[in-house]
Amino acid sequence: MSTATELLSAIKDVGTDSTRGGYSRHGYDTAELELREWFTAEAGNRGLDVEVDRNGNIWAWWGEPGPDALVTGSHLDSVPGGGAFDGPLGVVSGLAAVDMLQAKGFKPGRPLALMVFAEEEGGRFGVPCLGSRLLTGAIAAEQALALTDPAGDTLADVLRAAGLDPERVGKDEEALGRIGRFVELHVEQGRGLVDLATPVGVATSILAHGRWRFRFSGEGNHAGATPMGSRRDPMLPASQLVLSARWAASSMDGARATVGRLEPIPGGTNVIASAVDVWLDARAPNDGRTRTVVERITAAAKQAARDEGCEVTVTEESYGDAVHFDSALREEVAEAIGQAPGLPTGAGHDAGILAAHVPTAMLFVRNPTGVSHAPAEHAESGDCEAGVVALSKVLEKLAG
Amino acid sequence: MSTATELLSAIKDVGTDSTRGGYSRHGYDTAELELREWFTAEAGNRGLDVEVDRNGNIWAWWGEPGPDALVTGSHLDSVPGGGAFDGPLGVVSGLAAVDMLQAKGFKPGRPLALMVFAEEEGGRFGVPCLGSRLLTGAIAAEQALALTDPAGDTLADVLRAAGLDPERVGKDEEALGRIGRFVELHVEQGRGLVDLATPVGVATSILAHGRWRFRFSGEGNHAGATPMGSRRDPMLPASQLVLSARWAASSMDGARATVGRLEPIPGGTNVIASAVDVWLDARAPNDGRTRTVVERITAAAKQAARDEGCEVTVTEESYGDAVHFDSALREEVAEAIGQAPGLPTGAGHDAGILAAHVPTAMLFVRNPTGVSHAPAEHAESGDCEAGVVALSKVLEKLAG
Repeated sequence: MSTATELLSAIKDVGTDSTRGGYSRHGYDTAELELREWFTAEAGNRGLDVEVDRNGNIWAWWGEPGPDALVTGSHLDSVPGGGAFDGPLGVVSGLAAVDMLQAKGFKPGRPLALMVFAEEEGGRFGVPCLGSRLLTGAIAAEQALALTDPAGDTLADVLRAAGLDPERVGKDEEALGRIGRFVELHVEQGRGLVDLATPVGVATSILAHGRWRFRFSGEGNHAGATPMGSRRDPMLPASQLVLSARWAASSMDGARATVGRLEPIPGGTNVIASAVDVWLDARAPNDGRTRTVVERITAAAKQAARDEGCEVTVTEESYGDAVHFDSALREEVAEAIGQAPGLPTGAGHDAGILAAHVPTAMLFVRNPTGVSHAPAEHAESGDCEAGVVALSKVLEKLAG
Repeated sequence: MSTATELLSAIKDVGTDSTRGGYSRHGYDTAELELREWFTAEAGNRGLDVEVDRNGNIWAWWGEPGPDALVTGSHLDSVPGGGAFDGPLGVVSGLAAVDMLQAKGFKPGRPLALMVFAEEEGGRFGVPCLGSRLLTGAIAAEQALALTDPAGDTLADVLRAAGLDPERVGKDEEALGRIGRFVELHVEQGRGLVDLATPVGVATSILAHGRWRFRFSGEGNHAGATPMGSRRDPMLPASQLVLSARWAASSMDGARATVGRLEPIPGGTNVIASAVDVWLDARAPNDGRTRTVVERITAAAKQAARDEGCEVTVTEESYGDAVHFDSALREEVAEAIGQAPGLPTGAGHDAGILAAHVPTAMLFVRNPTGVSHAPAEHAESGDCEAGVVALSKVLEKLAG
């Protein structure tokens, strides 16, 4: 019988990032593949039957697979330089909750599975929740297979190398149809539970959110030999976009807009860039506000590009409307735990993708600083164990 | 006997950059090492004696090495995604000029050498003209050896791998003492010769120029879960720096300021950066104006960092005062060619570093668009051959 902290400790050296700090574990890279093997072995130790579905998501079954199964799970990948908890905490809490239930002799009254979703952060192929999007058909197989990672390898290449068949990727009604209800446990990515002085909460909603790539094109040239008046430098409108994003999101209630990735091409110190790629992450409480924020930023970016004699193209890389979790399930979950406050979140999750298809709920575990997607992300051991106890109660009640 | 165009054609497939376009050839990387070998073989074919000095610069001697030698040369490395001419044109023109002189039975009356300088662009270790700076002592050996490339390898590591002894790196009075006069041929990096309708010109001066790295530090966090009002996002002051650089250089006569390299850390789309590195390239006709431009940009960057609750540190990575080429040598060179206009340049060169130690001149070959440090960089074949003819006349006159 293992605690969540013990299980996290077992993987603490996998995928550490010596440059950025924290962890860089991306879908199907060496670190993530090692974590998948580790999870498979841990599930096997608990007598669970492990399978990998057509889209690379792992299922560990306690009892016969579906239908009307109760499923819990999260992901093992991270953002570049991410924390130890975002993703793995949900996975290890599932294992620890199974330990707790097995120790007390619990037998599921319906199928129960732990899941590990593939490439939740989109850190390698740019589209978040890639495994759950493929499973549910929220992204077309053809579009996903053509995505490329920074090394230029397509998802199709990478899946093939990992032993999966790209031909079989795509919406999987059969696998999805086995899920009766889904519950994801996750570290909180804010200070909601700190303010409430409570270790565990239940999610109420997820912001509408998406990613847009802006490609600004100008004229590459020599940084020393090109007079200031003769330049068409795409770094100027790219920088304006960063400032516009701050302004547009700050002016819209509940909205967030971020540029965390910006790549000048070719990227030489003594070179005026010929092009710049800027990724915008934008979110708001509903579709209308999100779209308005993105439209305002886009309009400002286009104006700035025109002012500099540059071109700009905008590509929507992913988008998901706001999610309001199933209220009946939320109540059942809160009741199983005893006392648990409801919390909205700005972070996307596989649970948010599944929510369009099956009743879905989320548990959050207190994060003392609220910091996430950074090496400083943290949750206290005691709170992690409170999360495991809460999850085990939920599994017991819903799969009993 | 080869033309410059034939020689450039022989290396056209070495170090092509399929991502950025053009060439990425950096000091001691696979491509640059291949070009060094190619140059060594070509020099050998012409009966020149090749040696590599303590700082990795190649010398190919026609006759006994120095003193009071006439030396011509340039470099084989490029900026990331650079053109085919910046550097290699000067090297191949030296080989082609030797062909021309040997064909007519010329015997040098004094030592004559072709040189290839190491890491002129600073594309790998950040410091431009690294080979000539080490040779002349313009950079301390200790400081240079500790420089790191993007993979984290130090210059010392890389030199060792290339068969050089890091212990012997540094100011080389003996090697430098052999140079009586130095002439570098280079593709023009502007439209001066286009406007004058002339294929070849002579350099008058180089702008004062330097590189500064700004490190903005804020708080890494989740792009969706962190409210706009709680952020300390270093991308904001980094973007302000880009805009300030445009403003500061445009307001100072003859100044240039460029940000062509900017790296958010960790660089995830759904992550507020914890830090951002921004490289500023700034130049102006003299030291005072250059320093003033950089001070104004620095003041604006510090203010922007304060406004966002971020920290900023500034590191001067390289600096060189303005160069005014030796006027007596310039006149001799112009006279040898026949008719050649004088032109200033904003681009730095190894000739600019050597000019502090020996009489130095530069020839420029017309660039039809003025574009440089980009795949579109070009010079017509006829103009390249005019450059070779001009260089051969200069070598004949000065080494006769």
